[in-house]
Amino acid sequence: MKSYRKELWFNTTQRRELINITPEIRECLRESGIKEGLLLCNAMHITSSVFINDDEGGLHQDFEKFLERLAPEKPHSQYAHNTYEDNADAHLKRTIMGREVVVAITEGKLDFGPWEQIFYGEFDGKRRKRVLVKIIGA
Amino acid sequence: MKSYRKELWFNTTQRRELINITPEIRECLRESGIKEGLLLCNAMHITSSVFINDDEGGLHQDFEKFLERLAPEKPHSQYAHNTYEDNADAHLKRTIMGREVVVAITEGKLDFGPWEQIFYGEFDGKRRKRVLVKIIGA
Amino acid sequence: MKSYRKELWFNTTQRRELINITPEIRECLRESGIKEGLLLCNAMHITSSVFINDDEGGLHQDFEKFLERLAPEKPHSQYAHNTYEDNADAHLKRTIMGREVVVAITEGKLDFGPWEQIFYGEFDGKRRKRVLVKIIGA
Repeated sequence: MKSYRKELWFNTTQRRELINITPEIRECLRESGIKEGLLLCNAMHITSSVFINDDEGGLHQDFEKFLERLAPEKPHSQYAHNTYEDNADAHLKRTIMGREVVVAITEGKLDFGPWEQIFYGEFDGKRRKRVLVKIIGA
Repeated sequence: MKSYRKELWFNTTQRRELINITPEIRECLRESGIKEGLLLCNAMHITSSVFINDDEGGLHQDFEKFLERLAPEKPHSQYAHNTYEDNADAHLKRTIMGREVVVAITEGKLDFGPWEQIFYGEFDGKRRKRVLVKIIGA
Repeated sequence: MKSYRKELWFNTTQRRELINITPEIRECLRESGIKEGLLLCNAMHITSSVFINDDEGGLHQDFEKFLERLAPEKPHSQYAHNTYEDNADAHLKRTIMGREVVVAITEGKLDFGPWEQIFYGEFDGKRRKRVLVKIIGA
């Protein structure tokens, strides 16, 4: 069994951003040399997310509205977590969007449907944060 | 390490349907011959879901109401994604329900609790769509 | 390829509780002797959850409010599932929080960011329920 590990670093300019990281993940897979297996990609922070959806700007606006409706950022005082922090909403938003994705590796490629793209979802940005890529297989 | 791959195809008669795919997944596992490992089952489309829950009709009605409350289909015009599309709600519903499940394989069986069943969740149906089954192990 | 399996049992005193199970998971990993691979930890019941977030009491209160807002327990009669049961809300809450986590194993350790902790989320407790830990690797 082969295994591969890499960290990807991000420092967004805004509090919330969605970043397509599929090209970086493809490069990890190429480096790993793994042809058949499973790839795990997860946020290493608890206020950000890794998820799979469509790379379409309108949809990303819809995600922002949806997340703000289900877990609004403000007022910060509505959350018990926000004593020294102001990011309780980011913990909840990440819960909705998910921490991780697991992707099948087949014949050395991400085994994806036609529109699947991997995103880093930042919900408490403007600082350096990490994503982990782990691949196991043969 | 052994690996196995199969696509399952669906073409629902309604826009939204929940389909118990546990028998098909069991058949994949049998075909694979894998006794110990991990099974990944994921939607290959970004408006559908694979998830684990109870096969109980009342609960499935509750899921429909819950998803329509959190991410209503109509009016279609409420979503920025819906210019040429009308399925933004399906992207959001699938986000709540999840893209994928990972299941332990032990002694050649799905290592499940008493009520766990795997479902395909279609949120933008009436066309051919796919689920991927990937199993790795020994 | 090595594999390892263990069940962890819980019997909460309240209907809803969040329990940090990271120490038990670390002990499983140590027992397994696996150095590189993937660890799956999932609820074996469909009214409970395994998820990764922060071990902070204020945030856990925020989760309770958030889940009760999105999928309120009462009145029980609002759910079609609640004929002989009263736990439809627990099925929905577990859907939001997720069934499972997959964690990278690197050099014999949980490959975690600084604040990641694994929780068992019970939403229909006061009875014996299980979590599965499965590890594969080398």
